[in-house]
Amino acid sequence: MSFTPDSRTDLDRFWLTIQRSAEIGKGREGGLARLALTDSDREMRDEFVAWCKAAGLSVEIDAMGSIFARRAGLDDSLAPVIIGSHLDTQINGGRFDGIAGVLAGLEVVRTLNDLGHVTKRPIIVVNWTNEEGARFSPPMVASGVFVGQYTVDWAHDLIADDGARFGDELARIGYRGDAAPLNDVDAYLELHIEQGPILDAESRQVGVVTGGYPSYGMRVRFDGETAHTGPTPMDLRHNALIAGARFLTAVDDIGWDFAVHDGKATGSRLAAWPNKPGILSETAQCVADVRHPDPITARVMAEKMRRAAHEAGAKAGCSVTVEDEWAWGGDIFDDELVTSIRTEAKRQGWNWRDIEAQAGHDAYHMAMRYPTAMIFTPCKGGITHNNKEDCSPDDLVAGLNMLLHVAVQRADR
Amino acid sequence: MSFTPDSRTDLDRFWLTIQRSAEIGKGREGGLARLALTDSDREMRDEFVAWCKAAGLSVEIDAMGSIFARRAGLDDSLAPVIIGSHLDTQINGGRFDGIAGVLAGLEVVRTLNDLGHVTKRPIIVVNWTNEEGARFSPPMVASGVFVGQYTVDWAHDLIADDGARFGDELARIGYRGDAAPLNDVDAYLELHIEQGPILDAESRQVGVVTGGYPSYGMRVRFDGETAHTGPTPMDLRHNALIAGARFLTAVDDIGWDFAVHDGKATGSRLAAWPNKPGILSETAQCVADVRHPDPITARVMAEKMRRAAHEAGAKAGCSVTVEDEWAWGGDIFDDELVTSIRTEAKRQGWNWRDIEAQAGHDAYHMAMRYPTAMIFTPCKGGITHNNKEDCSPDDLVAGLNMLLHVAVQRADR
Repeated sequence: MSFTPDSRTDLDRFWLTIQRSAEIGKGREGGLARLALTDSDREMRDEFVAWCKAAGLSVEIDAMGSIFARRAGLDDSLAPVIIGSHLDTQINGGRFDGIAGVLAGLEVVRTLNDLGHVTKRPIIVVNWTNEEGARFSPPMVASGVFVGQYTVDWAHDLIADDGARFGDELARIGYRGDAAPLNDVDAYLELHIEQGPILDAESRQVGVVTGGYPSYGMRVRFDGETAHTGPTPMDLRHNALIAGARFLTAVDDIGWDFAVHDGKATGSRLAAWPNKPGILSETAQCVADVRHPDPITARVMAEKMRRAAHEAGAKAGCSVTVEDEWAWGGDIFDDELVTSIRTEAKRQGWNWRDIEAQAGHDAYHMAMRYPTAMIFTPCKGGITHNNKEDCSPDDLVAGLNMLLHVAVQRADR
Repeated sequence: MSFTPDSRTDLDRFWLTIQRSAEIGKGREGGLARLALTDSDREMRDEFVAWCKAAGLSVEIDAMGSIFARRAGLDDSLAPVIIGSHLDTQINGGRFDGIAGVLAGLEVVRTLNDLGHVTKRPIIVVNWTNEEGARFSPPMVASGVFVGQYTVDWAHDLIADDGARFGDELARIGYRGDAAPLNDVDAYLELHIEQGPILDAESRQVGVVTGGYPSYGMRVRFDGETAHTGPTPMDLRHNALIAGARFLTAVDDIGWDFAVHDGKATGSRLAAWPNKPGILSETAQCVADVRHPDPITARVMAEKMRRAAHEAGAKAGCSVTVEDEWAWGGDIFDDELVTSIRTEAKRQGWNWRDIEAQAGHDAYHMAMRYPTAMIFTPCKGGITHNNKEDCSPDDLVAGLNMLLHVAVQRADR
């Protein structure tokens, strides 16, 4: 047995591993609710660590709880190739989002073990903590710390809606580690389900991700004043809930205005206080974002979103504070890696296409510092962040085998 | 000592009682956060019951936890005159809203005790449970049960945002009573701060409440579907949060459209789930209402509000369920009682005016079955449902003494 251009992963083994993950932190029928740093996240991590150790990997945990499972290279001093994604899910999440990418990394090293092939560089399979941001905002926080976007201390102080502190929850589940940061990374590869309808609609087996839709997001707080809902005249009101509602309505309008060329704008959160019948709300916190394949148009949408926040505040008599802003996507992935993925798709003979990512991924953070690329696999109807998210083994086989060969090519370089 | 047309309440004693209440369940500076059926509500109830017993009243608690403190009449078989309001507050509530009305009732019986005057009919001072609806929705629930609008079992099953059950919390604080319902009520009188700016702006000492602004409210649920905020095309979205935001924006627009003749429209609550970055929301529950002094215009506004709910749902691809609807106000108060209050204002020589209520009050429920009227006292700037709510003894003296004489006139009939 040796690694050859015809080597293939074990699809059945990979699928059984996915199915085992699907038993941990079950949500609604067919889905998962495995939020970051909960008991079910711990259970999944423990299982993943056991799998990694059984595969002969050495496991290290960093200060953010991210799990780095390392397969030594022939020259272990060389910068590693990292493969990974995340094992946490949304509150109404699916069985594949993120999970497929981590377990695909595991399947790559299992396959190399079967074939007795030791790559020149080490290969690390990573599970990034809290990619989803479903419990602790922002999302992709651990990969952000990894590349220096956030500090560990800042991230440890994040507070969930349930009042829990990130650092405390990390210690509680036993995943507050002390692994030293890596000096260098040769390449980062992430396989992920598309989370959109394109590959499925075109019956494509795999997508070569060329970049991400330029995306701009913001978290805005409106400050008003409590008062009675009845006698308070309209022009004396400072109802922060209405400021938030007007802002999210305007954001949705922006999405529709730019939808013809696949622009999207989303209001995803409005948390007002007291938010009760009989009383005008004092505060409202909103999260919104815009995405468009064209960078200039995306910036136009972002400017409209920002203006909408100020107009909404003014109309409702509330002050406006932009608490956070972020920009994602664009032409961020490594040309050489993207080309190697495209070449491998052709060589293996899959029905593939170039595609742009529209969601955020840990790969976006990694791409800020290291050569990075992504492989997309189809999911039924593009449905995700929903218990109806679904994939078959056939949806994953192309991406899995392309990942194997691209990773080995890179790790043997 | 005897009761004469010149008899007056003891303003200092009343004010000290108000100040003692202001120590229980303190909220922000100068305000109260004494939510229904919490420990601080219990502490206030215990104190109020002690005051009533010290005044020689017999205290009964009904199945809703409302406290009926009875001063016997010369003919105790006659239907009683009831005076009262509520001791619970909003989360950012003041020291006078509701409280002034209950303690004014107590001051009336204390004054009659001082004067040795026993009225022909019994007088009952009532504290209605959960007028505010700040913890358990709907508001005014106990007076609603009292007049047969709701059943006890239905009310006991209400669930707060914190997960607590009304009936369980009532038992927990020791105020789940078994007082038999009253057979009849001769009259219900409620003194309340205006909760609007009119009396203060006109430097009036008291308002004779002639009725309530016709008000229509609704609780609406929007049902959509979770999905990713990124790749999901605009026309495949079912974001219930956006349906809710569009609804509340439209409601606010209705308020502005009718503001010129003092119409008001309010979105007071939007609770979406999951309401998180990265995921479109599956459900959103909204509460909104419209109020206008003209009954026909109020109905027009209500129709616009209802249509706005359906348009918002349609635009956001969500189904719409009207979970509850209510109508308040109008020409509900008893002509004879209103006239007697007006006559008393003239006789005592206060600077008074007729005024319409714009908030909901327990008196609205009582008016459905019994002769009912209200007296409004000024509050600074009309500010209420806010810790800055403020009144001086001078703001209360006129209403307090009018209440004394109107109640005694009625109870001696």
